[in-house]
Amino acid sequence: MRLLDALDIEGYAATFTEDGVTDHAHRGEKVEGRAALIAGANAALPRYAGAAVRHWNDHYVIEEVDENTLNVSYCSLVTRTDKAGNVTFEPTFFIEDVLVRVDGGLQARSRTIHRDEPSPVAIAAAAAAREGAA
Amino acid sequence: MRLLDALDIEGYAATFTEDGVTDHAHRGEKVEGRAALIAGANAALPRYAGAAVRHWNDHYVIEEVDENTLNVSYCSLVTRTDKAGNVTFEPTFFIEDVLVRVDGGLQARSRTIHRDEPSPVAIAAAAAAREGAA
Amino acid sequence: MRLLDALDIEGYAATFTEDGVTDHAHRGEKVEGRAALIAGANAALPRYAGAAVRHWNDHYVIEEVDENTLNVSYCSLVTRTDKAGNVTFEPTFFIEDVLVRVDGGLQARSRTIHRDEPSPVAIAAAAAAREGAA
Repeated sequence: MRLLDALDIEGYAATFTEDGVTDHAHRGEKVEGRAALIAGANAALPRYAGAAVRHWNDHYVIEEVDENTLNVSYCSLVTRTDKAGNVTFEPTFFIEDVLVRVDGGLQARSRTIHRDEPSPVAIAAAAAAREGAA
Repeated sequence: MRLLDALDIEGYAATFTEDGVTDHAHRGEKVEGRAALIAGANAALPRYAGAAVRHWNDHYVIEEVDENTLNVSYCSLVTRTDKAGNVTFEPTFFIEDVLVRVDGGLQARSRTIHRDEPSPVAIAAAAAAREGAA
Repeated sequence: MRLLDALDIEGYAATFTEDGVTDHAHRGEKVEGRAALIAGANAALPRYAGAAVRHWNDHYVIEEVDENTLNVSYCSLVTRTDKAGNVTFEPTFFIEDVLVRVDGGLQARSRTIHRDEPSPVAIAAAAAAREGAA
């Protein structure tokens, strides 16, 4: 995240495997492989001219799948700080990574990004409460 | 927090002891025992139909009271992300947990939640400054 | 940060070396030594009468310079929570600490604070895109 937020696109891409996939599940958009990741990020660069973006992550859960594979999931709050210092917010996200060991380090084989949405459980409870009140 | 924010109420309640207490100190409201915690959370579910809630914690301080008891305190920033992706904020909080070892794991015997308020020290300093200026 | 946010000024100052420096690089302001830090913080106290401030840090990178010196950098999101519970935001920051071992503990010899700004890389990309479109 430090590399991404510093717009060090090559450095960020190097934290993925050569064929690493970023899946923006909430908008049905998949970026496959480092070259596509770098091309997409470079094309998006002008959008960051107005604000410094930061990702604030929390609540990592790390599960060992096998000795070379980890499933890591976490939440992310995303800020945009403009030239004047005003902070605005992107939606919050839930992220699922699959990390693999490569040459003694870890790289992301996939990163799946889900935008937070109101829970179906709560929506159903609210509907039931309205029905009960009617 | 992951369980609570996913509205997995039974799962969240299981992180407390059977008689675990949640004390919302800032509104003088105490929930005692897992059954009351689950009943209260279920009753509150409809309030979460409009937004996904996330707790972002930081600055944990962990103190060992004895070999089976830990005092853990931390700060919490609480976001609400609506269907359109807009993020709004609850007040910030300071939380004090008492955790106990149960069957080799940790459970909360109590969680005390304080809403952040301007400090009396700063309020007194401001009053003194006004007096000095008058 | 816990000590600073609790306005425990003496306690916070004690996390610095006697000659520790805080450099607000973004406003060209340097505070040198604990005594100046305490005096400045006390003078600023009235500004905190209206809101509880919290620093939310993330993405620590720790580099060992030698056996007694660590370079630690991280990001900080700063909230202000007023009496009514409304949360507003300071700009986000990037911080660079130099920590040294003193009597078996760590103290800050310097803390350099940079306000986040839109990246020159993104600004140049946006200018190039405008030129390309013109």
